[in-house]
Amino acid sequence: MLAPWRSLLSRNLHHNRSKPHSRYFQLATVTPEGYPANRTVVFRGFFDDQQNRLKIITDARSAKIQELEHQSQAEICWYFTETREQFRIMGNLQVVTCTEQDPTLQKARQSTWYDLSDAARSQFAWPDPAKPAASKSAFEVKSLDANSPAQNFCLLLLTPQKIDHLQLRGDPQQRCLYTLQDDQTWLTQPVNP
Amino acid sequence: MLAPWRSLLSRNLHHNRSKPHSRYFQLATVTPEGYPANRTVVFRGFFDDQQNRLKIITDARSAKIQELEHQSQAEICWYFTETREQFRIMGNLQVVTCTEQDPTLQKARQSTWYDLSDAARSQFAWPDPAKPAASKSAFEVKSLDANSPAQNFCLLLLTPQKIDHLQLRGDPQQRCLYTLQDDQTWLTQPVNP
Repeated sequence: MLAPWRSLLSRNLHHNRSKPHSRYFQLATVTPEGYPANRTVVFRGFFDDQQNRLKIITDARSAKIQELEHQSQAEICWYFTETREQFRIMGNLQVVTCTEQDPTLQKARQSTWYDLSDAARSQFAWPDPAKPAASKSAFEVKSLDANSPAQNFCLLLLTPQKIDHLQLRGDPQQRCLYTLQDDQTWLTQPVNP
Repeated sequence: MLAPWRSLLSRNLHHNRSKPHSRYFQLATVTPEGYPANRTVVFRGFFDDQQNRLKIITDARSAKIQELEHQSQAEICWYFTETREQFRIMGNLQVVTCTEQDPTLQKARQSTWYDLSDAARSQFAWPDPAKPAASKSAFEVKSLDANSPAQNFCLLLLTPQKIDHLQLRGDPQQRCLYTLQDDQTWLTQPVNP
C-alpha cells in the first residue's frame, strides 16, 4: 500500500510538470565536523518497493559520500513553486556503489545509469569535482556506455521516516505530519503551520 | 567594498525578479541530535553593514531556535530557476530576539518587523507551530502593531563565510568558491563543477 503522502506528492509532480525544476529538491546532510551541508539534486523517481524510497544519483568523488559515512540521516526540502506546497522528507540515505553485493540494489544502480541522458552520464568522466578548474578540453569526454555504469557512479536511496507537508495556499495554511511507526504504518497528524 | 559574489547574486535576483519564489531559499541547520534539518525561508534583504549579512525572520517557537543554540552554523541553498544558478552560502546564523541588548541589532529587528505585510505579522499571533491543529477561528487574529514587534518575532542574520556558486548553463558548467579570509578579504577559486 502506498504511504498516505505519496498521492499528495504525485499530485504536486503532476501540477508542476511544466517546470523542469519541480523535479529538483534540496538535500541537507551533516559534515564530519557537525556542520550542515545543503545542495540541489534531481529526483530520479521512486525505487519500486514497499519502503517509498526516493532515488538520487551522485559521484563517489562528491563530498556527500564522506558526509553520509559519518551521518546517514538526511532531510530533503522540496518546494513546488506553482502549487506553493513544501515537503520536508526526513530519512536514512543509503549509498549504492560499484561494490554493492545486493543484486537488487546493484540492478537498480545499473538501470538508473541506463536511464540517464548521454550528457548526464558524461559528467562522471569529468575532472575531479571541487578541485582547481581544469582546462575546457578536459571536459570534452566521449559518451559513456549506457550498459556499464562508471565506477564512480552511485545511486542514493532515501528511506522516508517523517514527512512534514505544508500548503501555503489557504487561510490558514495547512500543515500535516506523517510519521512511520514501528509496525510500518504511517501516523497522520494535522498540526499548526 | 562589496564581496565579489554580491554582484552575481544581485544579477540573479534581478533576472529572476518576475518569480516571487526567487526570493525563497532552503536553510539547513543541525538538530540537537545531530540530524540535518531543512526548510524554505524568505530572503528579507541584506543587513546594511560590511559583513554581507542576510536577513531571515522566524518565530521564537520554531524548532530552528533550539537547533541554532546547539549549532549556529547553517547552510543556505539558493537555486534560481530561470538563470539555473545555485548559491550555497555557509555561515554563522545569529538570532536577534526581543531581549537583544545591541541597539543596532534591536533596531534592525524592529525595522524588519515594520517592513512585513499585515498578513506576515499576523502569523506571529497564530497558535503554536507544529502543535495539534487548532480550530480555524484561532487563526483569525487582528492586525498587529507595525511599530511594536511581537515578543516571539526573531530576526536571523547569516554571516557568510563560504560561497559555492554553480552555473548549470554553459558547457562545461562553471563553479567558483569564495572563501572569507582572516583579513576579511575574499579568496576566489574557480573549481571543477
